[in-house]
Amino acid sequence: MCDPSQKHVLLVFAHQDGKSFNGALKDTAIDTLRSLGHSVDVSDLYSQQFEPRATKNDIRGPLQDPNLFNYSEEGRHAYRHNCQSLDIANETDKLKRADLIIFQFPLYWSSVPAILKGWFDRVLCDSFAFDFESQNVLDQGFMKGKRTVLSLTTGCTRDMLSPTGLSSDINVLLWPIQYGTLRMCGFDVLSPQISYGTKLVEEPTRQQYIKDWKCRLQNIFSEEPLSFPKLSDFDHKSLMLHEENGKKRVSSIGHRINP
Amino acid sequence: MCDPSQKHVLLVFAHQDGKSFNGALKDTAIDTLRSLGHSVDVSDLYSQQFEPRATKNDIRGPLQDPNLFNYSEEGRHAYRHNCQSLDIANETDKLKRADLIIFQFPLYWSSVPAILKGWFDRVLCDSFAFDFESQNVLDQGFMKGKRTVLSLTTGCTRDMLSPTGLSSDINVLLWPIQYGTLRMCGFDVLSPQISYGTKLVEEPTRQQYIKDWKCRLQNIFSEEPLSFPKLSDFDHKSLMLHEENGKKRVSSIGHRINP
Repeated sequence: MCDPSQKHVLLVFAHQDGKSFNGALKDTAIDTLRSLGHSVDVSDLYSQQFEPRATKNDIRGPLQDPNLFNYSEEGRHAYRHNCQSLDIANETDKLKRADLIIFQFPLYWSSVPAILKGWFDRVLCDSFAFDFESQNVLDQGFMKGKRTVLSLTTGCTRDMLSPTGLSSDINVLLWPIQYGTLRMCGFDVLSPQISYGTKLVEEPTRQQYIKDWKCRLQNIFSEEPLSFPKLSDFDHKSLMLHEENGKKRVSSIGHRINP
Repeated sequence: MCDPSQKHVLLVFAHQDGKSFNGALKDTAIDTLRSLGHSVDVSDLYSQQFEPRATKNDIRGPLQDPNLFNYSEEGRHAYRHNCQSLDIANETDKLKRADLIIFQFPLYWSSVPAILKGWFDRVLCDSFAFDFESQNVLDQGFMKGKRTVLSLTTGCTRDMLSPTGLSSDINVLLWPIQYGTLRMCGFDVLSPQISYGTKLVEEPTRQQYIKDWKCRLQNIFSEEPLSFPKLSDFDHKSLMLHEENGKKRVSSIGHRINP
């Protein structure tokens, strides 16, 4: 018998050292979720020596066009014909059965580390995660029904990553990931879990970060996701926001109604 | 004798196939700049099988802390003590002598391909490109005096990457790279060169993209860079925007004065 409250989680971990603070956050998530009866898969990218580069090696068998390599097109064909390299197919399988995907990583250059960017580039492929041609994007993306959350550590303080801070608003920095990548594939993106300045703060603060994460995970399946524009907010042909009595009031970090 | 109008350029190329449209843009840049008397180095990342992953292999000799691997700290120490892996040192040397760095790439998931993200993560290291502790960032970053430009191709149309388009404002998507990475290191960031929807447009438009790029490169060393907040706009202790008669009028994509 299947208990509908039992969920399946994929934790994608992108730190070199399991003994790090990122590792502690990962372990906290695994332990907490398992103790709640959920099952957890882990993709430990550095330990797996996960390949971030998008190359011909990702396609088994002959290429569609051996004379001009287009990764996106070859990747789509490989997914559709079951010719993806086995390391991608393995991640795809884990992702397919997951109800929640947690990305645990340190912020590198205002974004994910390259090894995790490579996971996005290679695993979230056309026809599996989305299809622009058939407009399976945003709330219609193939990942719909799955939740995801970025759990990240930063070198900078919360102030520095605020709208008036030197490093600028963390929500703007995360926009290409949260909207441009994850929401585009249909994921319900939850508010990011940010452990600020982990090298700058004292041990009690680090312990509090762990407790906060553990506490949040108790009810993560009933959290309200972040709000983003829907596919129906855009004209289906031009893919620009509908003009209705002027432009609809769809606000977001990346959209400006009156530029 | 050195002609001061002769400059040195580094072109970082992140496409798998030199025969692609990205390859044509790269060749156009090389030919045009050389015909103007400039010298050009090329880092062809896929051909070099450039390593994007930030690992212990990046440090030659013993680690500072063999029990807990912190990439940023180990990387800084390795740079300071000339113990970086040779592939990083090689890129560092090319970057040191460049007056202009061109990044040529296709947009992957609203950002650079993982192989190029790895170049940022590994080459633009603490103490070489910037130093947060001594506040060598933004206009005081160690890359000051060098110009850089993102030359990218997109799958989406210009409309889709506009402030009312489905994929959202390209300038917001590029903010973590242009400000959060390149400007943070001190580069003068030039307006991006964007060849939109290269698979969707007809051949004459693609030819126009090539011509536009060639034309722009003629005067690229006298272009006005993009405008970003300066280090002196921030309080040197809190690293937040100065309060002066309220907040100074520093506007940017990632900063909001009245959040």
